Amino acid sequence: MRTVAIAGVGLIGASFGLALRNAGFQGTILGVSSQRSIDQALERGAVDRGASLEEAAGTADLIFLSQPIYGIVETLGKLDPMVRRDALVTDAGSTKTVIAEAARRSLTRCAFLGGHPMAGKELRGAAAADGELFRGRPWILTGELDHPVARVLRQWIGLFGAREIILDPETHDRLVAWGSHLPQVASTALAAVVGDQSPGSAQVAGPGLMDMTRLAMSSFDLWGDILDTNSVAVGEALDAYIARLQAIRADFSGQFAKGADFAKGLRKPPTSA
Amino acid sequence: MRTVAIAGVGLIGASFGLALRNAGFQGTILGVSSQRSIDQALERGAVDRGASLEEAAGTADLIFLSQPIYGIVETLGKLDPMVRRDALVTDAGSTKTVIAEAARRSLTRCAFLGGHPMAGKELRGAAAADGELFRGRPWILTGELDHPVARVLRQWIGLFGAREIILDPETHDRLVAWGSHLPQVASTALAAVVGDQSPGSAQVAGPGLMDMTRLAMSSFDLWGDILDTNSVAVGEALDAYIARLQAIRADFSGQFAKGADFAKGLRKPPTSA
Repeated sequence: MRTVAIAGVGLIGASFGLALRNAGFQGTILGVSSQRSIDQALERGAVDRGASLEEAAGTADLIFLSQPIYGIVETLGKLDPMVRRDALVTDAGSTKTVIAEAARRSLTRCAFLGGHPMAGKELRGAAAADGELFRGRPWILTGELDHPVARVLRQWIGLFGAREIILDPETHDRLVAWGSHLPQVASTALAAVVGDQSPGSAQVAGPGLMDMTRLAMSSFDLWGDILDTNSVAVGEALDAYIARLQAIRADFSGQFAKGADFAKGLRKPPTSA
Repeated sequence: MRTVAIAGVGLIGASFGLALRNAGFQGTILGVSSQRSIDQALERGAVDRGASLEEAAGTADLIFLSQPIYGIVETLGKLDPMVRRDALVTDAGSTKTVIAEAARRSLTRCAFLGGHPMAGKELRGAAAADGELFRGRPWILTGELDHPVARVLRQWIGLFGAREIILDPETHDRLVAWGSHLPQVASTALAAVVGDQSPGSAQVAGPGLMDMTRLAMSSFDLWGDILDTNSVAVGEALDAYIARLQAIRADFSGQFAKGADFAKGLRKPPTSA
């Protein structure tokens, strides 16, 4: 792997570039993004230079798509005539079914490995990039795991300190509906309703309200695509959450015990690598 | 203020003792609690020695009640014949209306100042005590603010780095229903429903799910009393949250904007001291 192209040099894309550098990658990293993002990424050392999609895709062994989901779908639609035949396209989109379908439809000349590093923070953009962002985090992979470039990428992911998890796109999307998208919607609705109905609660805010509203700072620019491309699974999770909130008054004690069990289990170190 | 009695030497009680010491308090600190809690608090330097309620209440200028809410109510019922006439009783209970009523009913011989430091962590007990627990946090006060011991206590609270906020008990309980109790119930229900319906989501858990389930580790031993003594206001907040979750699918974009506004506002430094 000599040349990596990163399309969409935001928080995740620039953090991928930095993580590669931190882990010892000595090849060239090209960034395909707005001039502002390229400038920020250059300043952070996350890319070597900006390039057009055509130039980057034409030279890269690995093409890493880290745009919002529909941006990834759009790029996949343009990429096929540009790529090297031995290249691998991968991505960092937060849902996988729609992207895997787009790749199947669009990419005929090279391989695709869907990816989803479960990492992020409330700050956006290359200026907030962090080469340690992926350490200890799951990195879901789905697709052509044994392609030569995929094997190399998986070694780098291991060097980032991330935990590789292999899932089919539908299973991934169902698991993140519950484990990522529902928490986001729960946080957004909580912040919105407290802000509307009891803004004075801000003056008595303890660490609990801060935890529960951190996700609410997320941008709809990203989340609109996520919720739109996983609406069935998110709808099911949301319905179940509403039903649980309706039932909880009759069984505070039992739900506290259940909730504490699951929450404490989440904090145990994973049993497998 | 020469002698302080702390009844209920758990996380908050022992942190109060440590915070007094860190801020330079040189008097005696007596702990009224189980032998195990007293041993832990002694090891942390949070109290000077254990004592019976009768002995502690009979010598203290300030009596700090940091038990679960119904424990505070029970102690208030026993305290009146024991106290010095110039003493002040204060507390750290998470709801204030029921406690203020109990104090009005029970305390005839000395003064009462209700209190609620908005601080905590998922660990319990004196072993987890932290003299910096109150720094930067609101500390709500309600009652006899101008009593001589109250004036001294308020100076110490300032030295802890906490922000004094004066509220009547009913306003306090309504603000914390939205800002503290609703977030707790939202976290508990989320952890319980994900644990029941999609336990496999644990393997893809990112920082969002961790934030949103931290409160769910809280113990029902504490929260049973809180929810029971604030059930009307919590019920209203919970109904509004459920309604917002039902409505959010039709307006993700608007709710993201609202939620982000409130969440970002929470993170601005307070404008008044």
